[in-house]
Amino acid sequence: MKHLLGLEGLSAAELTRLLDSAERFVGVGVGDVPKRDDLKGKVVVNLFYESSTRTRVSFGLAARRLGADVLDFSPGGSSTSKGETFIDTAKNIEAMGVDMVVVRHSSPGAPHVLAKHLLPHVRVINAGDGAHEHPTQGLLDIMTIRKRLGRVAGLTVGLVGDIAHSRVARSNIHGLKTLGAKVIVCGPTTLVPAEVSQLGVEVAHSLDEILPRCDVLNLLRIQFERQRSGLFPSIREYRLLFGMDSDRMQRAKSGVLLLAPGPINRGVEITPDVADGPSSAILDQVTNGLAVRMAVLSELAKVA
Amino acid sequence: MKHLLGLEGLSAAELTRLLDSAERFVGVGVGDVPKRDDLKGKVVVNLFYESSTRTRVSFGLAARRLGADVLDFSPGGSSTSKGETFIDTAKNIEAMGVDMVVVRHSSPGAPHVLAKHLLPHVRVINAGDGAHEHPTQGLLDIMTIRKRLGRVAGLTVGLVGDIAHSRVARSNIHGLKTLGAKVIVCGPTTLVPAEVSQLGVEVAHSLDEILPRCDVLNLLRIQFERQRSGLFPSIREYRLLFGMDSDRMQRAKSGVLLLAPGPINRGVEITPDVADGPSSAILDQVTNGLAVRMAVLSELAKVA
Amino acid sequence: MKHLLGLEGLSAAELTRLLDSAERFVGVGVGDVPKRDDLKGKVVVNLFYESSTRTRVSFGLAARRLGADVLDFSPGGSSTSKGETFIDTAKNIEAMGVDMVVVRHSSPGAPHVLAKHLLPHVRVINAGDGAHEHPTQGLLDIMTIRKRLGRVAGLTVGLVGDIAHSRVARSNIHGLKTLGAKVIVCGPTTLVPAEVSQLGVEVAHSLDEILPRCDVLNLLRIQFERQRSGLFPSIREYRLLFGMDSDRMQRAKSGVLLLAPGPINRGVEITPDVADGPSSAILDQVTNGLAVRMAVLSELAKVA
Repeated sequence: MKHLLGLEGLSAAELTRLLDSAERFVGVGVGDVPKRDDLKGKVVVNLFYESSTRTRVSFGLAARRLGADVLDFSPGGSSTSKGETFIDTAKNIEAMGVDMVVVRHSSPGAPHVLAKHLLPHVRVINAGDGAHEHPTQGLLDIMTIRKRLGRVAGLTVGLVGDIAHSRVARSNIHGLKTLGAKVIVCGPTTLVPAEVSQLGVEVAHSLDEILPRCDVLNLLRIQFERQRSGLFPSIREYRLLFGMDSDRMQRAKSGVLLLAPGPINRGVEITPDVADGPSSAILDQVTNGLAVRMAVLSELAKVA
Repeated sequence: MKHLLGLEGLSAAELTRLLDSAERFVGVGVGDVPKRDDLKGKVVVNLFYESSTRTRVSFGLAARRLGADVLDFSPGGSSTSKGETFIDTAKNIEAMGVDMVVVRHSSPGAPHVLAKHLLPHVRVINAGDGAHEHPTQGLLDIMTIRKRLGRVAGLTVGLVGDIAHSRVARSNIHGLKTLGAKVIVCGPTTLVPAEVSQLGVEVAHSLDEILPRCDVLNLLRIQFERQRSGLFPSIREYRLLFGMDSDRMQRAKSGVLLLAPGPINRGVEITPDVADGPSSAILDQVTNGLAVRMAVLSELAKVA
Repeated sequence: MKHLLGLEGLSAAELTRLLDSAERFVGVGVGDVPKRDDLKGKVVVNLFYESSTRTRVSFGLAARRLGADVLDFSPGGSSTSKGETFIDTAKNIEAMGVDMVVVRHSSPGAPHVLAKHLLPHVRVINAGDGAHEHPTQGLLDIMTIRKRLGRVAGLTVGLVGDIAHSRVARSNIHGLKTLGAKVIVCGPTTLVPAEVSQLGVEVAHSLDEILPRCDVLNLLRIQFERQRSGLFPSIREYRLLFGMDSDRMQRAKSGVLLLAPGPINRGVEITPDVADGPSSAILDQVTNGLAVRMAVLSELAKVA
């Protein structure tokens, strides 16, 4: 594995090795556990075309805990607004002697374009490309499931919400299926395209119906800007049909695990009592996200 | 002291210990004086909800001179605009394994809320919360007075300007009173609320009247946006009544010390000749600010 | 040399020493070549009043590869918008114990003002001041010429485009002339002021006419905002008259070297096939830019 462009196509062995590695990275650089030097002397660039403090900070902190230098390169208001192409920006960064590029872009496939055009020694990590993939988010979701429930194979995982526009859903589907989980996608018909069943998932439109069958529910973030498109019901209607609350918790499978890729909208996808309750692993996800990113950076740095 | 949320409530002994410590930190990491490792392996986050290059850079530089890693987390345009709550943002930062949070927020009490919700090992430093407190600014003002005049107790300090909306005034009042100074607050009646006398300060509305009695004048920054509120006189009127100029310098007490929390408006709170003259300690305040922040960070890092 | 304010006035010996030094810095901190500690313990501030990700990142990376701490201080939205003067901002930065200030500003001469007002131990580097100079860009252009063609003296260098508003042109002219090159400036009459001939350069208005005589063509960036001023022809007309394409390449001198200070507008100053062809040194310029900045920082740090 030279780049991490998506979870699609990774084998169960590759996924498992990354997850095992990530578990060993939990807590590295925190408290009295010293940093490591897996990336000593290397320069990691965060090339973020969409603003994202959380993911950017998580990658930056992970890279520094491995001894790298980190540069933030947010083209907004800079060269790109001056008309420079994406490839030219990337080639310029490469010419400065950079080793790894963490890229977020609104266009699906942008990280693949980078991987194709940059020199062979440069590593590319997809930090979210349009509605395509967000592989480190997928990995951290799966890592959180594995740590809390002890396994992935055989579990039933419900992905709830706007499946059509979600790169998180797509990365979850690929990773979870490869590791032997059953995946149900669930949301309003306007936001769950029929074609998604081709990915080998069950399609549902009622959370109440799938509730008793799911070991894990991953409550995707509502993006309010979708409302304007007419694809999205009202917030109130969404909450009534797809929001997780204490009533639905009682009807859920015993021991159900709740995930949510932040930032969460309290009272929409999930009520505060449930978000802060014992079934929620939302903050574990953040902690595991750092470990997953360290594992990925370290793994890619090893490849010749 | 686990957190630094304000100067209110700190004892004279606690304040003196921080000031003594700060004096030892002056110049650390500058020129040939090496950095220290008080914060080695620790991560300090600047969580700034209001933009402030100076305070943010000062905290960042202080933390790095003590060996910490520094992250800037400016939620503007990021998760907060996506609807995430303040606490959720902070819990997320905490889950990344952060040790200290330097927070600036427009809401009074925001740092206290953080201190209450974060894990016990996380330290919180208030870098300004609404019109409430700005304790490191208060400390650096007091440190500058002590260094230049040799003492604090027994001095008369005039705080001039918009007292009602000033967190700097509030932190100065608490710290100076505790250390035995007399404090006079002075400004237009609309900007000096009568209740402030309950803090044990004298209230005045004429700078010319208090001029001969003050050992120190701290010329608070005019925030032009207040003008719109109708609370503020015209710039011209303010300058005439409360601006420090060479004429007023001649009527001031001999040896008077002038402070001003930057950025200053030259020709409004203070004329350029006076700002750059020998009585002004404006740049000393910046240098001392770094030392104060190093002292606070180092002190909090020691607490188990 | 205490500061680098421009290439005007530097002797051939000074320029050559910087260029020789820069060649030794190529690749330092990249791959297995370790960083250096020329700036160990020093703080370099990027004080950028105009946004520029590329130049800022290049200086930042150069400084870190020499062991410095780097602070980004972008006054936009901060103290400057609060009314603080340029000098006050700089004096504040100085008071924090900073060693070197890399400044970009829209006013010609701003770096000179800094150099005059800051303490004697602080070094100032001009990263672009209005239409005046951009000396590290000039140096990296000349370094690229010297590396690719083996010499500077005796070469004919054409600077093509908006000469009137170009700090890059001005720095190139001073450096190239001092090192014995012949310089031709070429562009629309509205953008090539007659006075420029006083700098000892030939003035031309037809690229086709100078094409057979130039060993190097430096294709200045078109700044579309000039169009509004009426000084600028249409994009189409510019491309026809001054754009470099494969047809013009055939009529150019054999072995011609093409430079362009990025970000380039593909299809305007240069067509993609030519920009990516063997005569183009555009990405070499980026790599050399890092080396030049390391050489300058290192050189200035040595001066007592």
